[in-house]
Amino acid sequence: MRILAFDKSGKPALGVRRGEEVVDLAAVAPDLPGDLPRLLAGGADAMDRAKSAAEGATGDAVMSGEGLVYHPTIWNPGKIICVGLNYAAHAAEAQSDTSTVQEYPSFFLRVATTLVGHEQPLVVPKASSDLDYEAEMVAVVGKAGHCISKAAALDYIAGYSVFNEGSVRDYQFKSSQWTSGKNFDASGGFGPDFVTADEVPPGGNGLRIQTRLNGETMQDANTKTMIFDVPSLIEIITEVMTLLPGDVIVTGTPEGVGFARTPPVWMTPGDTCEIDIEGVGVLRNPIVAAA
Amino acid sequence: MRILAFDKSGKPALGVRRGEEVVDLAAVAPDLPGDLPRLLAGGADAMDRAKSAAEGATGDAVMSGEGLVYHPTIWNPGKIICVGLNYAAHAAEAQSDTSTVQEYPSFFLRVATTLVGHEQPLVVPKASSDLDYEAEMVAVVGKAGHCISKAAALDYIAGYSVFNEGSVRDYQFKSSQWTSGKNFDASGGFGPDFVTADEVPPGGNGLRIQTRLNGETMQDANTKTMIFDVPSLIEIITEVMTLLPGDVIVTGTPEGVGFARTPPVWMTPGDTCEIDIEGVGVLRNPIVAAA
Repeated sequence: MRILAFDKSGKPALGVRRGEEVVDLAAVAPDLPGDLPRLLAGGADAMDRAKSAAEGATGDAVMSGEGLVYHPTIWNPGKIICVGLNYAAHAAEAQSDTSTVQEYPSFFLRVATTLVGHEQPLVVPKASSDLDYEAEMVAVVGKAGHCISKAAALDYIAGYSVFNEGSVRDYQFKSSQWTSGKNFDASGGFGPDFVTADEVPPGGNGLRIQTRLNGETMQDANTKTMIFDVPSLIEIITEVMTLLPGDVIVTGTPEGVGFARTPPVWMTPGDTCEIDIEGVGVLRNPIVAAA
Repeated sequence: MRILAFDKSGKPALGVRRGEEVVDLAAVAPDLPGDLPRLLAGGADAMDRAKSAAEGATGDAVMSGEGLVYHPTIWNPGKIICVGLNYAAHAAEAQSDTSTVQEYPSFFLRVATTLVGHEQPLVVPKASSDLDYEAEMVAVVGKAGHCISKAAALDYIAGYSVFNEGSVRDYQFKSSQWTSGKNFDASGGFGPDFVTADEVPPGGNGLRIQTRLNGETMQDANTKTMIFDVPSLIEIITEVMTLLPGDVIVTGTPEGVGFARTPPVWMTPGDTCEIDIEGVGVLRNPIVAAA
């Protein structure tokens, strides 16, 4: 099943993709929760009901997939946990000191004000022109867990999505902590779809992941080259904190980012950036200047 | 006005302090929002109505202030933005290299699963015994804003509170990013009260701030010695991201933390830690081992 968030009278609502069409979930199953964290918290029963309702939908509940206005797939996540330097070739291009092996992931957090949906603009802020792309696969938590073993980890992942983890590089490196550069308003594309785990290989492993900027391929790698795979990340994160349904894990970007190029490449107003993950989706965002 | 969050049949609810008593806000003003972010979003009108309702309360809506079970003052903040190394003497004790002046704050984020209320236990995790205290003043955002000037900044701060920004030090330094050490479950005490800005000096400036561990003073400084004061922080943060009502800014800790001592001092099961900020409140938490 593929679930998306679309704009319905100015507010986000859930849709279920059905071929070229999208079913308005609230129209066919008004008793189901209206956002993905709460829908996932309903467990397999809620997800099965969503699937059945979408399959049986007729009439006004069925919309064309064209012309939808997207919201971030999860617009209200409890946490957005990001992983830095999780592909070896990217770690090498991003760091001057490559002599040390990373034994523990570089986690950082994003806040919800950074998120934009598919086809919505990513914003070059007033403060900087150094807005870089980062193609990343998202793992979405399906049920609450703490101290989860690697072996059990995938039971806690409900599905996957696509993220452009837009990073304002000069702000990222203004102090030792990357927080500011990773948290500009409307700097992170998220979508178009949440894809349930049954539709992709276990752990989202072995998927081609690419960035295209104005059609030119800038990143082209495979999720199998992650240093810490999804089960490892779940084990490491839940040693620290409880994961809850709808929590978002953004699993890191491969080599080819803009700031590591000579000369550097930034996303600039008028550009279009696409993140393409095999079997998960293509996230496309125009780039605009801050108003 | 002083607002707190107390447990009402297993869920958090807002209370307004009235001397030794606490008024159950939902009982006297059921049409007002039931959490602080939404109450603050209601602006001066909602806050005035809360104040009037609490002043006029009688009967069952008025509780003793004794025996309340507290929740974190804001249990559902949109963001928890923390500031590292924001007092010079703490920056000196915490860093081996003190030759560089910090020109930009070291921001990091916490998630809501880290929060515990006044008198609720802070938890020493299974993974580590290195749980350190950090006395910090909280500034709470009262209205939405972006690119706010320092001169206008205090118009956006609704009030102040107290935080014990508990930090698991070995995890904090496992990678360059402090995220894990700052985000263990139940590691951050928050409360007891949200105190409206009219009850403290502008910017919460000039307040004595202390930590007492089992009654012994471990930190004793003044908020006037912050490197980046509250208006500066608001200006710097909102260059990056939009602040929303109920967002929480945890403004950094002064010198005297446990890990900088010889030998280091940790919070251990059986201890009691108090954070005391002049005119804002005393936050008290017992320390327990993870279950």
